[in-house]
Amino acid sequence: MTDPRSVSILREALQRLPGIGPKSAQRMAFHLLERDRDGAQQISEAIRHALLKVNHCERCNNFSETPRCAICDSSRRDASRLCVVETPADLEAIEQAGIYQGLYFVLMGNLSPLDDIGPDQLGIDHLVKLVDNEEIEEMILATNLTMEGQATSDFIVDLMESRGIKVTRLARGLPMGGELEYMDPGTLNQAFSERKSIQG
Amino acid sequence: MTDPRSVSILREALQRLPGIGPKSAQRMAFHLLERDRDGAQQISEAIRHALLKVNHCERCNNFSETPRCAICDSSRRDASRLCVVETPADLEAIEQAGIYQGLYFVLMGNLSPLDDIGPDQLGIDHLVKLVDNEEIEEMILATNLTMEGQATSDFIVDLMESRGIKVTRLARGLPMGGELEYMDPGTLNQAFSERKSIQG
Repeated sequence: MTDPRSVSILREALQRLPGIGPKSAQRMAFHLLERDRDGAQQISEAIRHALLKVNHCERCNNFSETPRCAICDSSRRDASRLCVVETPADLEAIEQAGIYQGLYFVLMGNLSPLDDIGPDQLGIDHLVKLVDNEEIEEMILATNLTMEGQATSDFIVDLMESRGIKVTRLARGLPMGGELEYMDPGTLNQAFSERKSIQG
Repeated sequence: MTDPRSVSILREALQRLPGIGPKSAQRMAFHLLERDRDGAQQISEAIRHALLKVNHCERCNNFSETPRCAICDSSRRDASRLCVVETPADLEAIEQAGIYQGLYFVLMGNLSPLDDIGPDQLGIDHLVKLVDNEEIEEMILATNLTMEGQATSDFIVDLMESRGIKVTRLARGLPMGGELEYMDPGTLNQAFSERKSIQG
């Protein structure tokens, strides 16, 4: 390589970003050093700052700068409902939809033995403790409808069985705007088997 | 948004990377904070370090930590040949091929009026001065075979006309491994019009 050493090091470092290979890293390094040094500075400092500030909410496990996050701290949320999601992005999507006023638990991933992510890494013991200590009436499992999300959900369902807590999951079927001819067999299957009576 | 402030700032900052939109930035921020804090640290420091260290070679305009880069400084290169490329990545590709022993000039982009990149931004005045002051016999234009690359190349050709310097460009035609049925009309066109006699 003919790059100066600190450019090589930068290219190497950028490859630690998810989905970024050698070519993208090279393009990014070029962009940062040649076209947007202000942006580069901004990224460097934003990372440094976030690493210092961001931790996990002691209750729901979501990212938080304070011991408890704003949602867990709010008195306006319905503390009898607990929605379990995989990531902060999922929580955000539900908040944006504006249909849920309860609390959350954020797993920060899903069960993935190949990546060494087991129940401990997801803080599932913490989730169980939370259920045992709080007055939760309903747990809503809102993991992704993927293999991993389902495995994670099933694992939690088993743990809740003996606890006499109502456990629900999100409905499955056609998404809004869904056109039947483009739906996969799995979705159509669910939509048929969970069809709802609308008359009589 | 329910994100802590320093997470939002990080997501915003990551969007300054080329090709990274809000969703990718969110995924990256999650990955850095939840899965790879070491990597995050590494990226932050690599950027900071590179911003401090990396400048341009005063002769060829490539990235360099020293006033002159290693290639310009080398006594083993053929100083009578000057290859003009768009980016350090292009230079690297030529070095990897190992067929060229001359010197380079790196434009760090191509003419792109829409992005406010004109001859000044590409240091073309510096390239002209270099040609006037050094004993260059041949200038090899190795810009990309794109509209912008061609416009840049044409612009330089015009400037060299009065200088009595031999100007060449890279050959055009079928790439190695190229299959005719998958070649675009432009490439086939070039390959036909620049066909070479192999006998008689």
